[in-house]
Amino acid sequence: MLIVQKFGGTSVGTIDRIRNVARRAIATQQQGHDVVVVVSAMSGETNRLLGLAQQISSIPDERELDVIASTGEQVTVGLLALAIHAEGGKASSLLGHQVRILTDSAFARARIQDIDDKSVRETLRAGKIAVVAGFQGVDKDGNITTLGRGGSDTSAVAVAAALKADVCEIYTDVDGVYTADPNVVRSARKVSRISYEEMLELASLGAKVLQIRSVEFGMKYQVPIHVRSSFNDNEGTWVVPEEKSMEAVVVSGVTATRDEAKVTLSGLIDKPGIQAQVLRPLAQAGIVVDVIVQAHIQNGRTNLTFTLPGSDLARAKDILSKAGADLCPPEQIKTEENLSKVSVVGVGMRSHAGVALKMFEILAADNIHIHLISTSEIKISCIIEAKYAELAVRSLHDGFGLGQA
Amino acid sequence: MLIVQKFGGTSVGTIDRIRNVARRAIATQQQGHDVVVVVSAMSGETNRLLGLAQQISSIPDERELDVIASTGEQVTVGLLALAIHAEGGKASSLLGHQVRILTDSAFARARIQDIDDKSVRETLRAGKIAVVAGFQGVDKDGNITTLGRGGSDTSAVAVAAALKADVCEIYTDVDGVYTADPNVVRSARKVSRISYEEMLELASLGAKVLQIRSVEFGMKYQVPIHVRSSFNDNEGTWVVPEEKSMEAVVVSGVTATRDEAKVTLSGLIDKPGIQAQVLRPLAQAGIVVDVIVQAHIQNGRTNLTFTLPGSDLARAKDILSKAGADLCPPEQIKTEENLSKVSVVGVGMRSHAGVALKMFEILAADNIHIHLISTSEIKISCIIEAKYAELAVRSLHDGFGLGQA
Repeated sequence: MLIVQKFGGTSVGTIDRIRNVARRAIATQQQGHDVVVVVSAMSGETNRLLGLAQQISSIPDERELDVIASTGEQVTVGLLALAIHAEGGKASSLLGHQVRILTDSAFARARIQDIDDKSVRETLRAGKIAVVAGFQGVDKDGNITTLGRGGSDTSAVAVAAALKADVCEIYTDVDGVYTADPNVVRSARKVSRISYEEMLELASLGAKVLQIRSVEFGMKYQVPIHVRSSFNDNEGTWVVPEEKSMEAVVVSGVTATRDEAKVTLSGLIDKPGIQAQVLRPLAQAGIVVDVIVQAHIQNGRTNLTFTLPGSDLARAKDILSKAGADLCPPEQIKTEENLSKVSVVGVGMRSHAGVALKMFEILAADNIHIHLISTSEIKISCIIEAKYAELAVRSLHDGFGLGQA
Repeated sequence: MLIVQKFGGTSVGTIDRIRNVARRAIATQQQGHDVVVVVSAMSGETNRLLGLAQQISSIPDERELDVIASTGEQVTVGLLALAIHAEGGKASSLLGHQVRILTDSAFARARIQDIDDKSVRETLRAGKIAVVAGFQGVDKDGNITTLGRGGSDTSAVAVAAALKADVCEIYTDVDGVYTADPNVVRSARKVSRISYEEMLELASLGAKVLQIRSVEFGMKYQVPIHVRSSFNDNEGTWVVPEEKSMEAVVVSGVTATRDEAKVTLSGLIDKPGIQAQVLRPLAQAGIVVDVIVQAHIQNGRTNLTFTLPGSDLARAKDILSKAGADLCPPEQIKTEENLSKVSVVGVGMRSHAGVALKMFEILAADNIHIHLISTSEIKISCIIEAKYAELAVRSLHDGFGLGQA
């Protein structure tokens, strides 16, 4: 088999941990597999490097920032290759421009366009473990680029896709993907298999095990992803194409995000383009709006409600009361803080009626008021008061029978 | 003019110093020049990186060592480019593989083979300062290489040669090249112009202002080198092709090296190849032998004397008493420590008789015993007891009239 293994900053955070990674890669190779290891910078290193840049400039040039930040992974691949040698194995490091991970030129958030598999294949053919720097690439003009935070997951899955690897193993400090946060729900269960679609919803909802872009990549190129612990050899969670059997499970996970805020603009003139007019200045200020709901159209007037991170609320209010004066009077802008978004996710929902109803009933039984509802094909989200979030997650987890193995 | 400026690790050792370098480069550009800046890693950084590698392996793979070590300069070029932006200038960083500084594949001590001037010229044409990473290159297979300690001087002069720069300015923490070490000889004078040949002799004799390979490069491609202080705007020392006027000056500098040791093997059979037979095991052990003198051939027997660093003496003795048993009996191996090599250098020597005689007379006047003598076209070296080294340097400096401006 051809196996791509990805280790994050914590897994390579010390010399001893780098040695552990080396041993695991060698052990995998000794089982008869071709092994490619993708690594992040040692934990703390990227922040140290960006801190140096910040000392010089508060808005540093992103091309130069990428030159600096990419050294973090460069050091790790060198050290890991040395560690594999020291443990008796054979390895060669490969940087983004050496593999040739071609990206666009959007420095600090580059997108992978193409990966040349030649240098990695040559390394494997020589009986070596290929140690590839995550997070970094090179644009068509030879400039060094980085993929943005968490980009090493994406590098790993993209490399796996280019090599048509049998599996991309993502090593983390948890055992896999759980039906809910085990710190909140004691009966939370590790999921053995989950579809890309479900994983996408869970990732975007705050389950931090996998970077969302890496799941998109995996889905696009059908790369089996195995999320597992770097501390043991247990099977983790396989993220795979949707399977028939999955539909039997209506809900596969429950998640909650914290620190949500809500903004409602009432009495807006109901004309085409009104929504864009409201949201454009927020987007320009880099504020990410999440759930958007429009309702109550009466007498040519409409209400628009949306959620955003609580930390952006003050700025958003300020922007809207200036920009929106001709849209709706400032006194008609209402805000609310300390909210949470609780969601249930599952591909089985598509063919099962009544999931939303059941969710509302479970929340109602706990006397939890629902502020907003948003649904997708495989997800239902409710905005509730944050203080009820943990209770809601536990009740939904129990109510949908997720604790039963 | 096209000016290459090189700043070492101390000159870019802190964020504030990087800002100073940025200001100097911008000021030079504002005088109407094209500016290329070559920088080293921040002081201490290369040792930190190699320390990490040492923790993993005591004999680390040199290819991977270069991947790790080269990040030091990569961080500096990024930070300096940011600093130039922050100070209102325009700049782009260029790594070894981006310039394309092509080297052989001798990792950790690579030799520059070719430099492509295209990317640097494009950067300059865009009105930018080109910030080039010193010390690093890339081999024909795209592997990252480094030039060995002090390699940034060589990078700078090589880049200057490739661009046919008008001058390569080497910034250091001293004002230039002196007739002797100012800490030893109070009347030591800064030399305003010196030939490549003289600089080569001085560099190899322990004047640490310029890396010896960079002088060789400068001589080969006739690049004017200007050694000057990073703390002021004073003229430093120009290292240039030999000029007629230089011959008027018989001696241009006096230097001394410390911690020399001497080994004498007596009663060696005088046959072809005997010298190589003695020195080969030392070379294989990485021991660098300096002055070699052979004399006193009698009855088919000869004596061989050579000097080496005092710190290598114990190992050398051990190697020779094993390897040389069939050459000469161990009891005929004599050693002496605590020696110093005192040298006078000057292109004028070629046309002036009696320089050696004068040197011997000056040393004799101080009652200094000469253990060994070695001469080149433009240099005379005497091995003396180390405790007399400073006295000898002062007396020679005075005796040859170097203190007079």
